[in-house]
Amino acid sequence: MRMYDIIMAKRLGQVLTDEQIRFAVEGFTRGCIPDYQMSALLMAICFQGMNEHETAYLTDCMARSGDMIDLSPIPGVKVDKHSTGGVGDKTSLVIGPIVASCGVPVAKMSGRGLGHTGGTLDKLESIPGLSVDIGKERFFEIVRDVGLSIIGQTGDVAPADKKLYALRDVTATVDNISLIASSIMSKKLAAGSDAILLDVKTGSGAFMKTLDDSVALAQAMVSIGEQMGRRTVALITDMDLPLGHAIGNALEVVEAVDTLRGHGPADFTEVCLQLASNMLLLAGKGELPACRAMAEDAVASGRAFAKFKAMAAAQGGDTSVLDDTAKFPRAPIVHEVKAPQSGYISHMDATRCGIASVALGAGRASKEDAIDHSAGILLHRKTGDRVERGEVLAELFTAREASVQEAEQMLLGAITFAQERPAPHNLVYARVTAAAVERF
Amino acid sequence: MRMYDIIMAKRLGQVLTDEQIRFAVEGFTRGCIPDYQMSALLMAICFQGMNEHETAYLTDCMARSGDMIDLSPIPGVKVDKHSTGGVGDKTSLVIGPIVASCGVPVAKMSGRGLGHTGGTLDKLESIPGLSVDIGKERFFEIVRDVGLSIIGQTGDVAPADKKLYALRDVTATVDNISLIASSIMSKKLAAGSDAILLDVKTGSGAFMKTLDDSVALAQAMVSIGEQMGRRTVALITDMDLPLGHAIGNALEVVEAVDTLRGHGPADFTEVCLQLASNMLLLAGKGELPACRAMAEDAVASGRAFAKFKAMAAAQGGDTSVLDDTAKFPRAPIVHEVKAPQSGYISHMDATRCGIASVALGAGRASKEDAIDHSAGILLHRKTGDRVERGEVLAELFTAREASVQEAEQMLLGAITFAQERPAPHNLVYARVTAAAVERF
Repeated sequence: MRMYDIIMAKRLGQVLTDEQIRFAVEGFTRGCIPDYQMSALLMAICFQGMNEHETAYLTDCMARSGDMIDLSPIPGVKVDKHSTGGVGDKTSLVIGPIVASCGVPVAKMSGRGLGHTGGTLDKLESIPGLSVDIGKERFFEIVRDVGLSIIGQTGDVAPADKKLYALRDVTATVDNISLIASSIMSKKLAAGSDAILLDVKTGSGAFMKTLDDSVALAQAMVSIGEQMGRRTVALITDMDLPLGHAIGNALEVVEAVDTLRGHGPADFTEVCLQLASNMLLLAGKGELPACRAMAEDAVASGRAFAKFKAMAAAQGGDTSVLDDTAKFPRAPIVHEVKAPQSGYISHMDATRCGIASVALGAGRASKEDAIDHSAGILLHRKTGDRVERGEVLAELFTAREASVQEAEQMLLGAITFAQERPAPHNLVYARVTAAAVERF
Repeated sequence: MRMYDIIMAKRLGQVLTDEQIRFAVEGFTRGCIPDYQMSALLMAICFQGMNEHETAYLTDCMARSGDMIDLSPIPGVKVDKHSTGGVGDKTSLVIGPIVASCGVPVAKMSGRGLGHTGGTLDKLESIPGLSVDIGKERFFEIVRDVGLSIIGQTGDVAPADKKLYALRDVTATVDNISLIASSIMSKKLAAGSDAILLDVKTGSGAFMKTLDDSVALAQAMVSIGEQMGRRTVALITDMDLPLGHAIGNALEVVEAVDTLRGHGPADFTEVCLQLASNMLLLAGKGELPACRAMAEDAVASGRAFAKFKAMAAAQGGDTSVLDDTAKFPRAPIVHEVKAPQSGYISHMDATRCGIASVALGAGRASKEDAIDHSAGILLHRKTGDRVERGEVLAELFTAREASVQEAEQMLLGAITFAQERPAPHNLVYARVTAAAVERF
């Protein structure tokens, strides 16, 4: 078998065989197939596409290129959740505890923030003492004992994906649905859960800007999951504006705690309940309405919050900050951003809000940067709200005095004002299963 | 400027700017742009194409990536000829002398044979003593004094093309008209002539198997030449069967001498006269019928043959073998291939004939192989001829006893017999200029 023939076959629009896909992925991962041949194949794929079987087989090869986590020692149906990334997206901190408190074990490996989006690990680490680097054995132990643990990736997960992604990133071959879907799903397959809930963001702060693209990506990922024997469901959720009011690590943990205690922002609470209900459904806990009731009860009863505290404690965290969130270290500078005009907020660009919070120290511009856990933004007004000139739109939290003006300008630049009330936004646009796309 | 944006622009079907093309070619040639980015761009070009201006500009950048030969010290209109390569194609040995003997200086840089096609330099070197490696100064001197010299490439001609071609060869991006045309024409532009005659072969022994593809390639090359200020004309000539009767270096020189003396094979003679007439036209020697008459007279008068001998002598060759071709070293083994059945030859696959001659020692399987100048094939019968079982179809000339059977089988495998006389073949299918495609 020759890589040349595989490139030519895809260039001519042929369906690649399993053997050809395996040969290309394995050879590339081992370094026997050079970058320049793989980039030619990737570009040909961007033009000719891959069918559902090719995409699933590619994903499987990528997953098997490294360590496959075996969650079978943990009893029960393990459900994983993946979000395509957004600004103010602290859903994992809320739905993990909800689902775990309903008896479904959650063994979750999360990532760190990069660019304008935050990462669950960084958020958790704003709880003093909490470690996300506890080793696989302790992770399993906590999931068995507490029912919930969230850690960083362990071992060598999907090295083929790492290598392929790095190449796609410099050869203008990132934005192909099959390649995006296989990249995400290879890591999910390797992470070993029985079922997967996908939270595909759509809008100005999302990788996928349009609903149609988001649905197409969701369908591709659901198809991969189901072909590989994992029950998979996707929700398409709004990321045209930041989710909730808090952007920045400790600020987001506080908002998550508020939500687990039943008094979080309405938009964020609703998205969390819908995601949690679908995870419970995937775990076999009943029909969707029953799962929804179960999730609501987990919050109302205080069981979800107790589960979050138990996990934090098991991972070494000081839970006193969770009981009294005023104890979280506070940023030395708090700056109020005021409305430059009266009117309605008709649009709030989530990406630019995320970049403003990075400028304040809440995120990383490059992988090596340190994070200021207390930095970030609290939005007092969001898309759809009426504001009067001089009213406080948001508070900026930072230790970087020099960055305050820059962040303020960025945030104001992210906001569009109008004289008329804008049409209301959906929170969840669609639910995608192997059988159907249900639009709301 | 970033290569990423250039790749993405072409992926999206945009027309690249001159600056983008120059950035990509110069960066790649200098090694600042890695292979994997260039191969992604090449694949995107295969899908999205390049317009005439992009193609011409790319060609110009490739030509300027190395030495540009300056032929201006030689007075007169210098006309170059390029053939896309064929089996038994010894036209340069005939038309160079014809054109030069009509007063048009011919300063030609030729190549060596590789694969199933032969090369002019290898053919010339079968004349004892003749050198094609005489240095640029002596080359100019001979062109000035004799009017004709043929040598190997000197200096670093179009290094961008060498690097690009090597990459295309392993990334399934060879067969794109713009890329093929720019590769050929970059070397022609760098070779410095004022006008260019292209001999684009078509059929089973040619790179382009169909007439339409051959015309498209010819049009792309003519467009490049004309945009870059070189008068350019292309003839589409037949390479569905070998040209003339001789395949192999010394055998082909003998056939070229016969043709220069007015008694060459009819097919080969006609193709040479048409090519030579068009070169004379490009040199401003008059209308095509007048140029044709001039070319015929050059042969009939003996002036063309005298010119060939003068060139051979100037390059150190022993011209006694040209006066008496029986003096050429003869292969130790001469094997007759006999017709296995009676009938008409309905097809003769030129590529397989070429491969058979390589097996006999006439060509190279890889660049380092030595050539046996006396080896080759003399075809006694060709497509369209009636043969009787047992009649001699061809003679094989070789020093490799072990290869005779293999070559015989290959040659017989290249021949298709039929009971009915096949339709006659065109020798020249079309003439392509900037203004029109004239089909015959």
